[in-house]
Amino acid sequence: MATQSTTATPRSSSRRLPGQMRCFVMKRIGEVGMMEKPLPECGPNDAIIRTTAALICTSDTHTVKGAVGERFDHTLGHEAAGVIQKLGSAVTGFKEGQRVVVNAITPCYHCMNCQRGYTSQCGGMLGGWKFANVKDGNMAEYFHVNNAQANLAPIPDELTDEQAAYCCDMLSTGFMAAEYANIPIGGTVAVFAQGPIGLMATVGARLLGASQIIGVESMPHRQKLALRYGADHIVDFSKEDPVEAIMNLTHGEGVDAAIEALGSDLTFQQCIRCTRPGGVISNVGYHGDGDFIHIPRMDWGVGMSDKTIRTGLCPGGSERMSRLMRLIQTGRVDPLPMTTHRFSFDEIEKAFHLMDNKKDGIIKPLITFA
Amino acid sequence: MATQSTTATPRSSSRRLPGQMRCFVMKRIGEVGMMEKPLPECGPNDAIIRTTAALICTSDTHTVKGAVGERFDHTLGHEAAGVIQKLGSAVTGFKEGQRVVVNAITPCYHCMNCQRGYTSQCGGMLGGWKFANVKDGNMAEYFHVNNAQANLAPIPDELTDEQAAYCCDMLSTGFMAAEYANIPIGGTVAVFAQGPIGLMATVGARLLGASQIIGVESMPHRQKLALRYGADHIVDFSKEDPVEAIMNLTHGEGVDAAIEALGSDLTFQQCIRCTRPGGVISNVGYHGDGDFIHIPRMDWGVGMSDKTIRTGLCPGGSERMSRLMRLIQTGRVDPLPMTTHRFSFDEIEKAFHLMDNKKDGIIKPLITFA
Amino acid sequence: MATQSTTATPRSSSRRLPGQMRCFVMKRIGEVGMMEKPLPECGPNDAIIRTTAALICTSDTHTVKGAVGERFDHTLGHEAAGVIQKLGSAVTGFKEGQRVVVNAITPCYHCMNCQRGYTSQCGGMLGGWKFANVKDGNMAEYFHVNNAQANLAPIPDELTDEQAAYCCDMLSTGFMAAEYANIPIGGTVAVFAQGPIGLMATVGARLLGASQIIGVESMPHRQKLALRYGADHIVDFSKEDPVEAIMNLTHGEGVDAAIEALGSDLTFQQCIRCTRPGGVISNVGYHGDGDFIHIPRMDWGVGMSDKTIRTGLCPGGSERMSRLMRLIQTGRVDPLPMTTHRFSFDEIEKAFHLMDNKKDGIIKPLITFA
Amino acid sequence: MATQSTTATPRSSSRRLPGQMRCFVMKRIGEVGMMEKPLPECGPNDAIIRTTAALICTSDTHTVKGAVGERFDHTLGHEAAGVIQKLGSAVTGFKEGQRVVVNAITPCYHCMNCQRGYTSQCGGMLGGWKFANVKDGNMAEYFHVNNAQANLAPIPDELTDEQAAYCCDMLSTGFMAAEYANIPIGGTVAVFAQGPIGLMATVGARLLGASQIIGVESMPHRQKLALRYGADHIVDFSKEDPVEAIMNLTHGEGVDAAIEALGSDLTFQQCIRCTRPGGVISNVGYHGDGDFIHIPRMDWGVGMSDKTIRTGLCPGGSERMSRLMRLIQTGRVDPLPMTTHRFSFDEIEKAFHLMDNKKDGIIKPLITFA
Repeated sequence: MATQSTTATPRSSSRRLPGQMRCFVMKRIGEVGMMEKPLPECGPNDAIIRTTAALICTSDTHTVKGAVGERFDHTLGHEAAGVIQKLGSAVTGFKEGQRVVVNAITPCYHCMNCQRGYTSQCGGMLGGWKFANVKDGNMAEYFHVNNAQANLAPIPDELTDEQAAYCCDMLSTGFMAAEYANIPIGGTVAVFAQGPIGLMATVGARLLGASQIIGVESMPHRQKLALRYGADHIVDFSKEDPVEAIMNLTHGEGVDAAIEALGSDLTFQQCIRCTRPGGVISNVGYHGDGDFIHIPRMDWGVGMSDKTIRTGLCPGGSERMSRLMRLIQTGRVDPLPMTTHRFSFDEIEKAFHLMDNKKDGIIKPLITFA
Repeated sequence: MATQSTTATPRSSSRRLPGQMRCFVMKRIGEVGMMEKPLPECGPNDAIIRTTAALICTSDTHTVKGAVGERFDHTLGHEAAGVIQKLGSAVTGFKEGQRVVVNAITPCYHCMNCQRGYTSQCGGMLGGWKFANVKDGNMAEYFHVNNAQANLAPIPDELTDEQAAYCCDMLSTGFMAAEYANIPIGGTVAVFAQGPIGLMATVGARLLGASQIIGVESMPHRQKLALRYGADHIVDFSKEDPVEAIMNLTHGEGVDAAIEALGSDLTFQQCIRCTRPGGVISNVGYHGDGDFIHIPRMDWGVGMSDKTIRTGLCPGGSERMSRLMRLIQTGRVDPLPMTTHRFSFDEIEKAFHLMDNKKDGIIKPLITFA
Repeated sequence: MATQSTTATPRSSSRRLPGQMRCFVMKRIGEVGMMEKPLPECGPNDAIIRTTAALICTSDTHTVKGAVGERFDHTLGHEAAGVIQKLGSAVTGFKEGQRVVVNAITPCYHCMNCQRGYTSQCGGMLGGWKFANVKDGNMAEYFHVNNAQANLAPIPDELTDEQAAYCCDMLSTGFMAAEYANIPIGGTVAVFAQGPIGLMATVGARLLGASQIIGVESMPHRQKLALRYGADHIVDFSKEDPVEAIMNLTHGEGVDAAIEALGSDLTFQQCIRCTRPGGVISNVGYHGDGDFIHIPRMDWGVGMSDKTIRTGLCPGGSERMSRLMRLIQTGRVDPLPMTTHRFSFDEIEKAFHLMDNKKDGIIKPLITFA
Repeated sequence: MATQSTTATPRSSSRRLPGQMRCFVMKRIGEVGMMEKPLPECGPNDAIIRTTAALICTSDTHTVKGAVGERFDHTLGHEAAGVIQKLGSAVTGFKEGQRVVVNAITPCYHCMNCQRGYTSQCGGMLGGWKFANVKDGNMAEYFHVNNAQANLAPIPDELTDEQAAYCCDMLSTGFMAAEYANIPIGGTVAVFAQGPIGLMATVGARLLGASQIIGVESMPHRQKLALRYGADHIVDFSKEDPVEAIMNLTHGEGVDAAIEALGSDLTFQQCIRCTRPGGVISNVGYHGDGDFIHIPRMDWGVGMSDKTIRTGLCPGGSERMSRLMRLIQTGRVDPLPMTTHRFSFDEIEKAFHLMDNKKDGIIKPLITFA
């Protein structure tokens, strides 16, 4: 699918009206462009952030294709760092001008699901996902943060905004895949697909004690990055059956955990097939197609295999963000090799199309704001 | 499917040859009957048990229909209590003549999967299931127990053999369904199907702190038993859509956990549909049909709902058996209302056919041995 | 220690000044009394509740004795139900006049510890405890609720305010003791002391699958109530050594979990002594004396016994409160037998002194407000 | 304490009698020496191993000082690799001549505690510890392995016997300290003492996702090794108060987990003091002195801090051993820098005394067998 642009003449930032800001929006399904909107208002529990650095996510391209339904003039983006422009009256412990980063998921922390500990399911299934879903995203000069007290994460001096922005979704989701995988120390893990989430799942598996990590990937530049990020083996599914290859690499036992980081029914099935009894299939892929995802009955032990299927959505909150940033600070993970392209906000549409068509070896494009 | 009998003239126990025992066997797929076999041999880690009480399981009828493949002259049965006839030289702490019960699943406790804690997956997927699967079962005058040290559970004086026999599979599997369901204290649980396993899952949910238990069942005598065993509501799927009914009973939230105790693709889907985000689908049903079990994509939150799908196979071992028996001893659960029919071993074929066609309001038939 | 009163002439509620409310306060260490205070103010995230029913807690008497340090004219109380008098502008989903109950612990749900899931440690150790600790309590005609969105729990129509008030601390803390105890299904539990928290720990152990519950208690009326609430055995520590008795009752193995619900160094040591290796000591007693609590070295396996020592503070929040109230609604627990005494708010000082000296077989005194 | 030797003239291995083997024994409390014993017998579930490489443990020196009580002519040692000399008749899947390693702890895997998952508490508290405790150890030319089926771990071709021997206790115990610590990804950990167990706890914390690891140690060569093994900071307790230093390094919050790897009452107290509410104190130190270990009451939150105290004893079994060895194979950990000294079996007494007095910068001495 091609996304159309209607932004014939993007305004330069110097020409925007007072109290207005430029936003990169989904005009409607299949169409993106730049537009001006008034600055968001700031309630007592909110904050307004002036954006400095943002990353485009493949899910932004899904959104434009209609994954969450129709939207009009909806600002895209959910991975951004910036500077506090305004703080709500009830928000304490921060100051305007402070550098902060905000997770892609911004739960309220008060509702039933948040209190249960499922903050990404805030208010209802997937309800913690607000940016570019139920409210404007952060590919804009300014963005609004709900429940700012819990969602604003100060960026340590040692970290750049670019590094911090990687914590919003890539590290949080990728690491969650490994956290949910219940890896025993020295266990074995297969990670299906080595896009940015899969790469960070690979790092996550490494951080959580796996002794053997098998990355399933066919694109050479992603294979290379997977090895750099700690995969022990690469299985190229275009050249061999990945389940068979994984069974061979694990002496016929299968892996302790298989991570689905693609969002394909087929790889989901392969995950179940290559996981040993008692193991975990940790799904983080967004499944966009079909009415059903298929569990292969026999490989699932006719429903009695002790194979557990887990899912989740990027965990948010400043507390987690502080831990993720500390992992960068102390050298446990370096997200920067994922930045394959850099653009100014003026050029964002180009970046978006590149992310959509996955050309030019793109992993993640960084957008910087003047 | 009708199972054929080839036992024209069942021998009375008094007429069997020395060193021989009578066994109720699957002659081949679709055919059952009584036959004589030599008493099993007893290796250093084994025990031979003289059977006193046994229960027939629906899975015995599945086996005869070919669920585990072809078998010839294979003794059926995996739920039995008895008396120690012979002990292997390396088995300590028991004595011949002692009353014991043996779980349906008899793991080795030494292999990799056993050491990992997945004893039901002993040696490989579902490998802990040995009786009437990879070795003769216990619908016989005597049966053999592997790894007797860990698999023989002494029956307390206060319990009958009948009560103890219910721990072999019904309580162990039914309670596991609830244990795997991760029920928060005061949580809500739906149990799909109220056969003997579903009934014990209902008791399990009650034992583990659920405040609202919804039994899904259409047969009146099972509905009645479900209420007796602690269900708060009955949803009759033949009269209303169970998912809708469950959503209404939970104020639109769905249950914290749904237990699949039938083994149907449709009820599995309903389990996912009626479980709230962050909840658990605990599958204990044996799924006998089709290449795939279906996960409804949207109700699964496109793979990000924090809904966890768990499975398992009846946990074995004497330690668990002792806890299950203690629950009967101290009045937490009374399995006897499940015994709807009683037969002598001579009449076992009649009992078997009744279990197969589920006529006459049968829940469980007890077989007693002279 | 005797607490002194300075309330010579308690005002009747009809005579209080406009905008004023009567409060039962700790005047200073060792002295309680009634006084008037202005109604609390209501910020955007707050609520003001008109009190209808409250319970006095032993910890109120500890507070007056100086357990949390000096306080002047500090309103006591942390177990109360009432009616919403006023709602902050940012609080949604409630309406004034609605019946609600508020847990003893009122976390912010936004700070680091809350996000980590340790809401009772909000902002710092024990920081979730605000009522009668860092702000006025709720033994007053009105009380203030911080972070009302997460802390107001609507009372179901089927429940009385008295029943609901028991969820504030007694059920929440008592059940936590059992939740933290990691009881295997059919496991064994000892509960040291059968005061109201110990009684609810006994119920909690019953709700969470224990097959054998041993209540340690010397007072006959508490022993009797313990048996009513589900204890299987009573050990009277004044007549026998409780560790020895528990070892005998468990065939020399010790219990899977021991719950310390008294707050004594000695019973804590006994908990460690009577817990089997791999078991849990779940401490909920408030330890008020001495610099150290003592772990008996040998019984702790010289530090290698796999005995786990857990602690916690009454978990708060409306989500948990709704589950606790549902347990009362569906008949899993009935707190009312704990109400041994009833007083009007005018008589609260009498109730307080009774609670302090534990005379007249008191378990819990209920205070009702006109 | 000085240990006395009575081995005036150690026999060379060529001079031992047929069917005899040389053993390094505790003659009685305070006295060690070499002696000859007959080769152990091999029951149906046993194996006899010809020793090739062994490590001396500080706990061997504790044993000689009387830590487990009096023993006469008791062979020391519990960390050894070797070659299968003889297999019991019921042991399958191995062959004589195969290289294997055996964990320090050799549970039966059949008893109640083993079935509960607490294999180190096999048969009773600390009962999994058999070598040099309830049976002869493995500082001998040959040693006996009970329950060989579960306790023999084949050594991969890529690993030396020396590497494998480190898995017996150092890696298994050290990593357990981190596994029990419940470290959140990116969490903070303090490890008290950087002896070989503390060093491996440091590696364990690194393997399990800690972002900040603080090693507490005063000896320069251990500090240096701690940094090499992944500590981010060293706190020298001889130069500053370690609790204060840790609080400063964690911005006043305390660590998510503190690991006690020394076995001192004082460091145990410091662990509780420097752990944040909701955190874990993971004790692996052997506490040899006094009747009580002390919990500082206020720092423990008067029993309500949500601070959990865990303990454990080196987890055994071939499954864990295979995972630990794989971590060496794939380069996650290199134990060899811990081998500071090397001796032949003839020289073992010298090695033992060095280990006892901790002179010459010793970390671990390797003993090789001809």
